[in-house]
Amino acid sequence: MDEFSLIGAYFKRAISPSKTPQMDVGVGDDAALFRVADGHQCVVSSDLLIEGRHFFADVAPRALGHKSLAVNLSDLAAMGAQPLGFTLSIGLPRVDTEWLSEFSKGLFALADEFNCPLIGGDTTQSDTIVINITIFGQVPTGQAILRSGAQVGDDVWVTGTLGDAAYALNLMQNAPTHSDLAQVRARLEMPTPHVAFACALRSAGLAHSMLDVSDGLAGDLPHILRASNVSARIDCDALPQSSVLSQLPAAQAWQYAVAGGDDYELCLTASATSEVRAALFDLAQKFATPITRVGTITPMNQENQVIWHSERAPEVAQRLACSNGFNHFASH
Amino acid sequence: MDEFSLIGAYFKRAISPSKTPQMDVGVGDDAALFRVADGHQCVVSSDLLIEGRHFFADVAPRALGHKSLAVNLSDLAAMGAQPLGFTLSIGLPRVDTEWLSEFSKGLFALADEFNCPLIGGDTTQSDTIVINITIFGQVPTGQAILRSGAQVGDDVWVTGTLGDAAYALNLMQNAPTHSDLAQVRARLEMPTPHVAFACALRSAGLAHSMLDVSDGLAGDLPHILRASNVSARIDCDALPQSSVLSQLPAAQAWQYAVAGGDDYELCLTASATSEVRAALFDLAQKFATPITRVGTITPMNQENQVIWHSERAPEVAQRLACSNGFNHFASH
Repeated sequence: MDEFSLIGAYFKRAISPSKTPQMDVGVGDDAALFRVADGHQCVVSSDLLIEGRHFFADVAPRALGHKSLAVNLSDLAAMGAQPLGFTLSIGLPRVDTEWLSEFSKGLFALADEFNCPLIGGDTTQSDTIVINITIFGQVPTGQAILRSGAQVGDDVWVTGTLGDAAYALNLMQNAPTHSDLAQVRARLEMPTPHVAFACALRSAGLAHSMLDVSDGLAGDLPHILRASNVSARIDCDALPQSSVLSQLPAAQAWQYAVAGGDDYELCLTASATSEVRAALFDLAQKFATPITRVGTITPMNQENQVIWHSERAPEVAQRLACSNGFNHFASH
Repeated sequence: MDEFSLIGAYFKRAISPSKTPQMDVGVGDDAALFRVADGHQCVVSSDLLIEGRHFFADVAPRALGHKSLAVNLSDLAAMGAQPLGFTLSIGLPRVDTEWLSEFSKGLFALADEFNCPLIGGDTTQSDTIVINITIFGQVPTGQAILRSGAQVGDDVWVTGTLGDAAYALNLMQNAPTHSDLAQVRARLEMPTPHVAFACALRSAGLAHSMLDVSDGLAGDLPHILRASNVSARIDCDALPQSSVLSQLPAAQAWQYAVAGGDDYELCLTASATSEVRAALFDLAQKFATPITRVGTITPMNQENQVIWHSERAPEVAQRLACSNGFNHFASH
């Protein structure tokens, strides 16, 4: 395999000075060069995806190309940062031109949508498919929305609906002919990063803390709680569910929503005032990004970092809270 | 495997505001934050290393930690850029604490030497060891030393000596008890990136083009030639060789030097004036980085992109030039 011809054919695209004016040198030199706007910090995140761990070997390559970049765009969104560009390192067992063509189509369609060009990387042969994307963005200095800013009394919000991706994964593994799969599969394979909403949120100064939900609410919310030295009470009845999930038994739907993963929705905290709530709903409407208030930040409680509450099915919430997954994260 | 405890134990180190004042947020949030100095471009490079392709499974983990970062620092050096920080994505078959401890020691020793902190990344389980480092640096806007600036008449220079790493690899694979191995092994496993020399070179404005030699001179010099639309004549007799390689037959030593790899020396072109030559030798002495003039940039010659010349053993140079490896690259 000649890595240079591989890059040349599928991943080397000229940078468009009009569309991405801060990009100066892309693929083709020892390193790429770009400019960060004055008064801005550079924002960097990196995700490693490995065949058999993060995706099936037979995943549609176009969806994989989309998702590989989407999860990184979602990390930038979680900071309220504007994307600038990314590097792609890819290891492949062989040069499969059909696969490469589809993968790059999925990748570049999303890159073009977010004006986030590929500016460098590496290619090599490997036994299984290995994909690492490192993404760069910018944010006005000091304005990134960190995990450490949650305050006692804050509302806890999530965007979109939770649990669809985990339900899709379960169906693909255990019931691939189930009629629900068609409705939730795209949530697993083609997640939508909420970049524009997040940048507007940062610009409006509305959120105290934020992250993106890649390991389920029970897996990720504690990152905010630990970084901010607080706890939370979550109202399970309020967890936003798609129409598909809302038809499942509560225990099952909540399990997907809180212990599942791969939703790439945003979880944020903000002041519990009527003005802030109204401003958040305005932003949500403007960017067609539904948001739902699901709980409250409480003073640090070492015993129960998250209290999972329900009026509708208290015993189900209780059982969820006692399950292994929850105790695992609560113990941190 | 709990990736967070893994990160926490081995890769999460606090950023030192006094030593790396441009780093604001490191490992632990959705993304890292740093500042690029005013009037500077951000420089980014990424390398993917895979067990069985780029290193042996039984390589000393400390050396692997060193080399993983060194090859990226070398890419920054090739642009004349100053390192700022890096992300590490690592896939491991299991949590081997001894291996992780040694790997991180090698990694952080080099990171500390270059004030280049780890600021983020990803960890996951994988069947074989997978390492991707993306490195960030800065360079005064417009002053990066690109591959595209070589001019007809330029001298071609290389730092250090060439071929030792390829010779070491050959001995490890075919003659692991050979007495030469001890003298060249470090060149393969613990390469030294020439960052300070390269930054001084950029600052002095002496070089027209530069890259680092990771695929042998025959593999890499053509990148400069193609980007600059020129050709080159290389004097094989002048190729700098270590005392170990100089005792091998010329054909063998040249083969390692020009068709080998992993030397991570710099190859640069600069005006062929006595003033520039003297200035280069001064810099070389100041930074204890030997440099050797090995050839000349010539007008574009489609037939022979590189002419490999020798007074001492013309038939050997001729044979080298006709070998598969050379034609492969010459055909581009």
